Amino acid sequence: MTGATDSAAADGSTPEAIMGATYRALCEHGYADLTMQDIADQSDKSKASLHYHYDTKEELLLAFLDHLYDAFTDDVGTTDGDDAVERLVRFVDEVLCPAERTDEADGESDGGETGSDGPDDDGTGEYEEFQTALLEIKAQGPYVEAYREQLERVDAFVRGRVRDIVAAGIDEGTIRSDVDPDDTAAFVATLVDGVNTRRVALGETDGSVRDTFLAYVRANLLAPDADVAADLEPDSETNGGEASDAADASGGAESDDGLATAGGDD
Amino acid sequence: MTGATDSAAADGSTPEAIMGATYRALCEHGYADLTMQDIADQSDKSKASLHYHYDTKEELLLAFLDHLYDAFTDDVGTTDGDDAVERLVRFVDEVLCPAERTDEADGESDGGETGSDGPDDDGTGEYEEFQTALLEIKAQGPYVEAYREQLERVDAFVRGRVRDIVAAGIDEGTIRSDVDPDDTAAFVATLVDGVNTRRVALGETDGSVRDTFLAYVRANLLAPDADVAADLEPDSETNGGEASDAADASGGAESDDGLATAGGDD
Repeated sequence: MTGATDSAAADGSTPEAIMGATYRALCEHGYADLTMQDIADQSDKSKASLHYHYDTKEELLLAFLDHLYDAFTDDVGTTDGDDAVERLVRFVDEVLCPAERTDEADGESDGGETGSDGPDDDGTGEYEEFQTALLEIKAQGPYVEAYREQLERVDAFVRGRVRDIVAAGIDEGTIRSDVDPDDTAAFVATLVDGVNTRRVALGETDGSVRDTFLAYVRANLLAPDADVAADLEPDSETNGGEASDAADASGGAESDDGLATAGGDD
Repeated sequence: MTGATDSAAADGSTPEAIMGATYRALCEHGYADLTMQDIADQSDKSKASLHYHYDTKEELLLAFLDHLYDAFTDDVGTTDGDDAVERLVRFVDEVLCPAERTDEADGESDGGETGSDGPDDDGTGEYEEFQTALLEIKAQGPYVEAYREQLERVDAFVRGRVRDIVAAGIDEGTIRSDVDPDDTAAFVATLVDGVNTRRVALGETDGSVRDTFLAYVRANLLAPDADVAADLEPDSETNGGEASDAADASGGAESDDGLATAGGDD
């Protein structure tokens, strides 16, 4: 098999190139129609070489989801902020903000991308395409237990981060002491899933939910006399200015999606 | 074609039997693998008869989504409640509560259901299976504009109902006057989509989000001195009792899913 000569994997390291090719193939073809040949076509590997490492498409996808978890947790593993409320708002913006993670998942992509027949080619299209493939994978949850386990891992990470931030906020006095960190984490994770689903199903990327999320944080979480750095005043009419300090945390990434939109035009 | 003798459609009425068969076939096979033969197998029609009315699977599915919209809006078209806050909580419970709508979509099902190879056969499994197929269809949103239009129609209905209830609440003084009905509607619709996605992707049906939704309603929407009928005290530890009045609105349907769970063990 040609795979035996594949230096990227011969050293036992994560085959980044295959992960990048898988990402691009998912964006272009979606999950249901994806074949090993599609992934090979996005890489410098042959289909036989891919099969040397991964018996099935499912096995390769599992390795990809594992890789995605690492990239995701690297990206949003720490969140700066003067207080827990600011960190919470920034974390949610980061989770819904595509740019950095997309670069990461691209691996060693260097212009090898082929023309896409996906839903959108206006520049932001790639992330939409990837979210579409991810939603297809989520719909496999009841059938492929191993996919569900990977999805649960990502979800547990998101909920864990929110829970820790909220608990720290209670300790420092910026978040009300009667707030339940676990309930809040489940609520925020559900909201994030809703934004991502709507982005695909309805093409909704206007970030209209962000203002209401800020109102939720202000009314439900913020301690009565807390002085926090994040601007939590929802103001749909004048967004893009006042709330931008809360969205700047995304590391300069484009805030043109989901919750991240309304506050950040940087 | 045998379809020409199909009395159910000869009068031009919605062929309820085909819709019921489509529902059952979606539950059993999911969307991606669904064939016209699968749908024929769930009905007393031949595949040729189905093709007489619907050229493609996509066309039949569009008719099904249209039928689903009618059934859904019939089910949750009106919501009783002493005040807007109670109606809002009940409406959200209804939207996430499967039983009635499932019966409706079954059409003239009378025991014709075959053994399911779906993810779950414990009785609540059928609704989970249907939600899985629906999530697959949502993932087709970027590719099949006609699906997206049907999904948008359902979403517009949900948002419209929430907006109207909130606006009525502002008028009657139970909901704060500074609440934006449209923002609230988008927020609630996003939460609903999140619950439905998590039900499929993660198998999450514990209704843990409901308490936090009630807290959201209480802190963000409820007017300061309003006396409302719904019990908005979130209390995960003692649920099933105190909040049941808010969940009873689902017309006796089983409250074993999503937001509807925590408050209703009836």
